[in-house]
Amino acid sequence: MIIVMERGATKEQIQHVFDRIRELGYDVHPIYGVERTVIGAIGDERGKSRLQVLESVPGVEKVVPILKPFKLVGRELRQQRSVVQIRHIGVGSDQLAIMAGPCSVENREQILTTAKIVKEAGAQFLRGGAFKPRTSPYDFQGLEIEGLKLLAEAREQTGLLVVTEVMNPRDILSVAKYADLIQIGARNMQNFSLLKEVGQANKPILLKRGIMAKVQELLMAAEYLAAQGHHNVILCERGIRTFEDATRNTLDLSAVPLLRELTHLPVIVDPSHGCGIRSLVPPLAKAAVAAGADGLLIEVHPNPEEALSDGQQSLFPDQFSALMKDVRKYAELEGRYI
Amino acid sequence: MIIVMERGATKEQIQHVFDRIRELGYDVHPIYGVERTVIGAIGDERGKSRLQVLESVPGVEKVVPILKPFKLVGRELRQQRSVVQIRHIGVGSDQLAIMAGPCSVENREQILTTAKIVKEAGAQFLRGGAFKPRTSPYDFQGLEIEGLKLLAEAREQTGLLVVTEVMNPRDILSVAKYADLIQIGARNMQNFSLLKEVGQANKPILLKRGIMAKVQELLMAAEYLAAQGHHNVILCERGIRTFEDATRNTLDLSAVPLLRELTHLPVIVDPSHGCGIRSLVPPLAKAAVAAGADGLLIEVHPNPEEALSDGQQSLFPDQFSALMKDVRKYAELEGRYI
Amino acid sequence: MIIVMERGATKEQIQHVFDRIRELGYDVHPIYGVERTVIGAIGDERGKSRLQVLESVPGVEKVVPILKPFKLVGRELRQQRSVVQIRHIGVGSDQLAIMAGPCSVENREQILTTAKIVKEAGAQFLRGGAFKPRTSPYDFQGLEIEGLKLLAEAREQTGLLVVTEVMNPRDILSVAKYADLIQIGARNMQNFSLLKEVGQANKPILLKRGIMAKVQELLMAAEYLAAQGHHNVILCERGIRTFEDATRNTLDLSAVPLLRELTHLPVIVDPSHGCGIRSLVPPLAKAAVAAGADGLLIEVHPNPEEALSDGQQSLFPDQFSALMKDVRKYAELEGRYI
Amino acid sequence: MIIVMERGATKEQIQHVFDRIRELGYDVHPIYGVERTVIGAIGDERGKSRLQVLESVPGVEKVVPILKPFKLVGRELRQQRSVVQIRHIGVGSDQLAIMAGPCSVENREQILTTAKIVKEAGAQFLRGGAFKPRTSPYDFQGLEIEGLKLLAEAREQTGLLVVTEVMNPRDILSVAKYADLIQIGARNMQNFSLLKEVGQANKPILLKRGIMAKVQELLMAAEYLAAQGHHNVILCERGIRTFEDATRNTLDLSAVPLLRELTHLPVIVDPSHGCGIRSLVPPLAKAAVAAGADGLLIEVHPNPEEALSDGQQSLFPDQFSALMKDVRKYAELEGRYI
Repeated sequence: MIIVMERGATKEQIQHVFDRIRELGYDVHPIYGVERTVIGAIGDERGKSRLQVLESVPGVEKVVPILKPFKLVGRELRQQRSVVQIRHIGVGSDQLAIMAGPCSVENREQILTTAKIVKEAGAQFLRGGAFKPRTSPYDFQGLEIEGLKLLAEAREQTGLLVVTEVMNPRDILSVAKYADLIQIGARNMQNFSLLKEVGQANKPILLKRGIMAKVQELLMAAEYLAAQGHHNVILCERGIRTFEDATRNTLDLSAVPLLRELTHLPVIVDPSHGCGIRSLVPPLAKAAVAAGADGLLIEVHPNPEEALSDGQQSLFPDQFSALMKDVRKYAELEGRYI
Repeated sequence: MIIVMERGATKEQIQHVFDRIRELGYDVHPIYGVERTVIGAIGDERGKSRLQVLESVPGVEKVVPILKPFKLVGRELRQQRSVVQIRHIGVGSDQLAIMAGPCSVENREQILTTAKIVKEAGAQFLRGGAFKPRTSPYDFQGLEIEGLKLLAEAREQTGLLVVTEVMNPRDILSVAKYADLIQIGARNMQNFSLLKEVGQANKPILLKRGIMAKVQELLMAAEYLAAQGHHNVILCERGIRTFEDATRNTLDLSAVPLLRELTHLPVIVDPSHGCGIRSLVPPLAKAAVAAGADGLLIEVHPNPEEALSDGQQSLFPDQFSALMKDVRKYAELEGRYI
Repeated sequence: MIIVMERGATKEQIQHVFDRIRELGYDVHPIYGVERTVIGAIGDERGKSRLQVLESVPGVEKVVPILKPFKLVGRELRQQRSVVQIRHIGVGSDQLAIMAGPCSVENREQILTTAKIVKEAGAQFLRGGAFKPRTSPYDFQGLEIEGLKLLAEAREQTGLLVVTEVMNPRDILSVAKYADLIQIGARNMQNFSLLKEVGQANKPILLKRGIMAKVQELLMAAEYLAAQGHHNVILCERGIRTFEDATRNTLDLSAVPLLRELTHLPVIVDPSHGCGIRSLVPPLAKAAVAAGADGLLIEVHPNPEEALSDGQQSLFPDQFSALMKDVRKYAELEGRYI
Repeated sequence: MIIVMERGATKEQIQHVFDRIRELGYDVHPIYGVERTVIGAIGDERGKSRLQVLESVPGVEKVVPILKPFKLVGRELRQQRSVVQIRHIGVGSDQLAIMAGPCSVENREQILTTAKIVKEAGAQFLRGGAFKPRTSPYDFQGLEIEGLKLLAEAREQTGLLVVTEVMNPRDILSVAKYADLIQIGARNMQNFSLLKEVGQANKPILLKRGIMAKVQELLMAAEYLAAQGHHNVILCERGIRTFEDATRNTLDLSAVPLLRELTHLPVIVDPSHGCGIRSLVPPLAKAAVAAGADGLLIEVHPNPEEALSDGQQSLFPDQFSALMKDVRKYAELEGRYI
């Protein structure tokens, strides 16, 4: 941690900062510059947000952290990239993980039909929401347990792995019973109660970036899981909120190579929520693979026009099959396969 | 709902949209313009997000909602402003609600000292976190139940009302046992599981705007509560996330008069989180009152330099007392008092 | 244009709006809904921002434009994609346009060396700033005319086409004398004085998206050029400003397929400014091609460590050559070549 | 400047950074921490953006500037607040500067009528655009020189001072001939060509914050003027672009007290552009005064419903008069007057 003193800071103020730094258990290393004094506080600053409070001390201009606030999920501790093994599929391996399906599980026919379609096109995972976070209380809220059972039935029939979201800590064990991969949705990325309890499920977790979350905050949310010994975590870029309103969100593909530098965890991309417009999903899916994504999460619906949610961003079955053909070629250029 | 057809939409496509609109239970009212056809779908569109799915239909360019998506919290249904009565204090009345206290309850002495200070300066509510949402798992996470008990003790001693946050649906009843006003924090504004269960507590709710939430989304979150019959809701503007990083968030004071136009619910302002810098809190608190806020939520700490969280934005006791003197004058200009 | 009346609008207010719409030269087409009246104003609304002023009229809740505000650059008027011909290179054709070079022209050796490097790797254009927009007045401001001459010398030696920025209307003719393609930088996208005069140069224009510009505003800036009869315009996505500060900007690759739907003009991508971090440039350049970009604008410097500007985002010569090899393969998948 | 080395940086890499720092003219002061080495570069780093380029050097993780990049406009050099004297009015003094008038000068009657109205209500400045930056080429572009003459005539008749915008460097002298205070609009805040030439006019300048400009960038734009010896600069907060679309922009009132800490220059607020909604202007104008603004810039139109631009955010004459009465009281609380 670097503490920058104000231009006119007095000797007494500087001494007081020395004392406070030492009280907090750090070594003091001052640099006396031309215009101002800068003080290095030497020691492991993580988990010591109290150093930040030195900004409250008279004469201090700002406190600049030096170390990255995450540790277990960072590449400094673990250079090698992690593979999250979910039954027979290794996410983060050379095989691209393809997760596809409808926004919501709507009924038996819809989910079974979709499962067959996406399986045939090459997906290894079936996505589908049973518990749905909806902006309006008047919108369809999901089939809940009934939806989970339908997902399990689809797995039975197709061999696809099931990924689905949990929103309430009370539902973690129910969801874990049916899911192969548990999704923490964008709105819950900083739902720390959920993050603290989800590890009980003992299942791999798909952690989606919040629309308001910096890459560093996504990593801190993953660090919550890792700090409890839960390391089977897949990160997902799915668009952030910006001033641009022509698309539902702004898909931040730079986060993909950036995350690959910062963390050993696998990173997948959800272009469907990323842009919210069906016709933009295929080019962005290909771009995600080119940018180095370890997988894709794509909304597909047998009849988007009748979907109970997100119809406007769901691919038609044909579009998805065509896209998978293209994606295979892009994957190959990256030394990967589906 | 207005459905705008593409420039080259065919007769068949237009007819298909007519059919779909009628299937969904609306009347059709087309306008044939010079360049394109626009179709009015007449009926109550709220809760009918399925109309939005018409954007999936070939030939449709966009779907424009006409009605506001919230209803119970809106001023169209209820012109008169609501007063949320919490024991002897009516939030939304001519009396400004002043809620003050530390970010976190740290220990008995800290919270009792703070309570006396803010009570004397004019606050009617004591704020203090027992369950803390922290970005890092290594940061202080709050005293939990122990913290709630200390808050209750402070109420006993001072007569202040207690406002504190709940994060986990499992804790709602515990928090309700000690709190007079239950806070849903910014990170949980769209934690729909929490919104659906918090009504059980049968206590007034302070709903903070998420850092990435539009005003309309804040109202939709309040609508979740109202749709369950829970009308004792106070809204709180506390800063949104923008590109500006000189302040912790960007306090959106325009939300105050805007919310007063859109909803009958009371609106308070939290300038401490809004800017994150102690010296900016007093001018912004005064500005909030001038903009029409029904109250203020302010962080005060007996010794900010030693605070376990948010020290840099907490007022010193003297600053808070001085601010309250100023605020009284501003309140008077608005025909209000503390 | 659709005018939505307030719920309680009176007959007189509605009649007044009818009158105003007719005064402005439009036909009136009302829809009387259950809760409120909606009025269609039929006619070409573009250039009639005065209709927007109806929001000032008592009883009016909002005014919703139906037509896109741009016309000449839109695909509705011209379905076929445009190719901007710059000497022997057609930007927007199957050939990807590769523009590369340093941020600033620094000296003769630097620019000539870079030109040879990028030429050999496959670029057809040499980029380099002679007039530099710099945030600080204390930073290097460019070599100005001297820099233009060096660019021209590099063209002479290599056959590369020259693309360089103009900032001041007074410099348009000088820049046009040396450049093959004139760049309007991100900060000047809405410098309407420059947009109105740059057409005099009678040279193709590269229009970069402002960091604060919506896609629609980028198209309106291009419409300024088109409205003066200047149609040789290439658009460039180069990152927008968001809350994410781990990258210099957030590269909005969804803008590429979106622009391809909305406009017939070619669209290229500048990943260097888009992310501001050298190591992220190659994956984002490949992603841009996969997303459908018509070309790339990339910063390359013979010795980034010594660059007078943007060194941290400039590729080393070797990196650029390696990237071009990769890009060729991605281009092929899109049916294109370099 | 602090250079943070990567965790695994080698001795040679560290030595190379030492060498580079010394080459650039700084003293080296290393701190050897537990996990990594941090190097202080001692000297005046402003204008030395080349230090930033050290981020390009192998082994360097990041470069952290210590000094604020602005100097002449900062309070470190000049503690006392500046008063910009414009004829008989001192902006930044205890007298609040009130600038009011229409968005655009539309015709003689409109501007003369408005001038009388705002004069009577207490304004000292008449605002009105003669050169208009408009998003669409099809919108009204202003009366240009004719508009300037009408503004001068209004000054003649009322004694109001004239503030109007210049967009093109070519028009600086013309505008200076008629204006008492020259406005650089938000879109031109980083139009460095304009900033470099506007000083020629030898007139005070009103510099509006760009919608995507950080406070620090606003100060750097002012520094451009100061670096040329032009110190009569007034800053204006007028709303920034965020994800919130219920208002035209998000008025950032925290910028007011923040700027008062960082710079000695006066700071005024434009609530009209800040929110874009007439009914929100009065509460935000009062809030701006409470937050410490040195003045207000407000759009007033004799008949907003017929305005050629910005009608929806212009106050009716009666509203403006009522607002001024309120503002006087708020000013008094701040020890100021109109």
